[in-house]
Amino acid sequence: MIPDRAALCEALAEAGVDGWLLYAFHGLNPVATRILELEGLNTRRLFVLLPREGEPVAVAHRIELAPVAEFPGQVLPYARWEELHAALGSIVSGKRLAMEISPEDAVPYLDRVPVGVVELVRRLGGTVVPSGPLVSRFASAWTAAELADHRFAAEVLAEVARDALRQAVREGDRGLTETALQARVVAAAEARGLVFDTLPIVGFGPNSANPHYEPHAGSDATLRAGQVVLLDLWAGRSRTTVFADQTWMGFAGERPPERVTRVWEVVRDARDAAVAAVRDAAAAGRPIAGFEADRAARRVVEAAGFGDRFVHRTGHSIDRELHGSGPHLDDYETHDDRRLIPGIGFSVEPGVYLPGEFGVRSEVNMHWGGSGPEVTPREPQREMIAVSEGGRA
Amino acid sequence: MIPDRAALCEALAEAGVDGWLLYAFHGLNPVATRILELEGLNTRRLFVLLPREGEPVAVAHRIELAPVAEFPGQVLPYARWEELHAALGSIVSGKRLAMEISPEDAVPYLDRVPVGVVELVRRLGGTVVPSGPLVSRFASAWTAAELADHRFAAEVLAEVARDALRQAVREGDRGLTETALQARVVAAAEARGLVFDTLPIVGFGPNSANPHYEPHAGSDATLRAGQVVLLDLWAGRSRTTVFADQTWMGFAGERPPERVTRVWEVVRDARDAAVAAVRDAAAAGRPIAGFEADRAARRVVEAAGFGDRFVHRTGHSIDRELHGSGPHLDDYETHDDRRLIPGIGFSVEPGVYLPGEFGVRSEVNMHWGGSGPEVTPREPQREMIAVSEGGRA
Repeated sequence: MIPDRAALCEALAEAGVDGWLLYAFHGLNPVATRILELEGLNTRRLFVLLPREGEPVAVAHRIELAPVAEFPGQVLPYARWEELHAALGSIVSGKRLAMEISPEDAVPYLDRVPVGVVELVRRLGGTVVPSGPLVSRFASAWTAAELADHRFAAEVLAEVARDALRQAVREGDRGLTETALQARVVAAAEARGLVFDTLPIVGFGPNSANPHYEPHAGSDATLRAGQVVLLDLWAGRSRTTVFADQTWMGFAGERPPERVTRVWEVVRDARDAAVAAVRDAAAAGRPIAGFEADRAARRVVEAAGFGDRFVHRTGHSIDRELHGSGPHLDDYETHDDRRLIPGIGFSVEPGVYLPGEFGVRSEVNMHWGGSGPEVTPREPQREMIAVSEGGRA
Repeated sequence: MIPDRAALCEALAEAGVDGWLLYAFHGLNPVATRILELEGLNTRRLFVLLPREGEPVAVAHRIELAPVAEFPGQVLPYARWEELHAALGSIVSGKRLAMEISPEDAVPYLDRVPVGVVELVRRLGGTVVPSGPLVSRFASAWTAAELADHRFAAEVLAEVARDALRQAVREGDRGLTETALQARVVAAAEARGLVFDTLPIVGFGPNSANPHYEPHAGSDATLRAGQVVLLDLWAGRSRTTVFADQTWMGFAGERPPERVTRVWEVVRDARDAAVAAVRDAAAAGRPIAGFEADRAARRVVEAAGFGDRFVHRTGHSIDRELHGSGPHLDDYETHDDRRLIPGIGFSVEPGVYLPGEFGVRSEVNMHWGGSGPEVTPREPQREMIAVSEGGRA
């Protein structure tokens, strides 16, 4: 929804801009979709200016005025492209405007506006700067209802994952396939009220060393005793709320061999180091950027000698999109210097991948609420789930 | 799929570029999705160069190599952003490259690449130009199977629309709501094997004067005798093939009053003028651009004095997307100077909208096949469907 006027003015002043210019077209900008609460057709270009002074202005095509029917401000309709340019020019000329851009694509999730649109705004006299801080505060922050939905989903996923892995690791060589375990997990979570948008990742043995492995019936692996089992699952109470996103690890045997346990402990400790970095900064009232939390986790992995096997960022923003528009925990795929701020949520999911052998990832989520950063689920995984560890994971 | 090498080289030479650089990220570029046949996760940046000389090259993230598992060329994997920049630099430096951009957003459907990505390619030494002619030829053209699917859908939609309107116009004041008619239409088309991605537009009386009206149960209108009925419906044999998209008009009474008939005839004749312009150009072997077909229709409407009531383009590209990436029939919302070429398809749908009174649109589709441009459905609407006209529409 369009931010409260006082909060918006404060944030625009802090960002040093005259306004926030949102651009929406065929759903290409999830930030605009979120702030403007767009539903239905969006087949024509829509611009909305939320200015520091004066009332909001929407520039909307005459044949698609429904999205601005209850717009709290002025609506400038256009039909011909010359009218669009005139209306847009009248609101951007001479202004410094925040838009969803990211210089040289440094943060791809913030880089949403096509090059031609930015060229047009510039030619019409506007100066365009990234909207990062506004996006984190107004588009990525969770509502109370979304937090409640997320917590519910997180506890259900944790129980479903634990149960599924306990059962799987006991099955050893009995023919369990990755897609069969995937189907079990989906059925169990759906029975408890969750919906998935895509299927969980299930990887046995060497497949767990592929961070984005997707099993397919027919070509998927069958579990063998002595293999690592990776389960990464994301689901929520509905498709339009905040999901939970977790990764759990099992071992199909009495107890994992030393090398597996060693990697597990490194990954778990890296996860907890990132969590601690965020908690400590919050407690001390000290700013912390996404890249700093990544470094906290990466240091642990590097110190253990597995730095070159941790081939992705530590975490991603989570909002109404699973890979959200807020700050990521990333000093690897990108250098995300956006601050972690109250209201937002993200995943914490370091991993170590040993091609041909096995991979280990451990994933929890964090939400920075009124009483500080909170981890979901309430009880993160402490030990790998193995036959002997079934009761304590 | 990746174009045949000989055809691609010819098109690249014609476009005066060294290669076609495709960028894919979270489905933001339907052209890349189509050419690279992407399925599954696309959470990391993927670049693919189809060069005029040498083999294709993909730059893909190490944790997401699945989309390039069967890539017919070289794969350069990256993990850190510095590696991405190095790999991308090695393929773009000093090259003139076609990408999905459109100067100043002149054609929004071709303007797909975020500004930061273009900045990055430029900083790495590439020159970027629009890929319009390549998109029309390789991404927007229909396959034979897609043409067959489209023809099937077109005939089903035409029959369903005619039947539904014949029944509706006879019901006069008997309480038919817009959403009830919408549901009837969907049920009839689904029963005959079609799927919808969004619901048809049904507008009674003044609602038909809103070109993108969407009825909602509870707030929708109830048909009254003497009202115009607009039905715009789009559906296909599956969500992954080419849809048909048609608009049909009815009148809930014995015969439409003179003013309604006059507007209908103007719109119908404008539709047929655009169709004739494309056919004539094809027959004469003369190039025709999208904007020229728009002008042919618009001239008819303007000559009748309704030019200012025809508030949208004449037609849109249709490919695997209902609003496709190929040329539009547009000299109004944009000036689309891309050529209409064999292989592509589009809608032809002029309209005249009289706010507070009624609106009329008539829509058929065209596909430019081996034996020239073809109109679907085979029998476009000639007269409005009214009680007296039930047999001849």
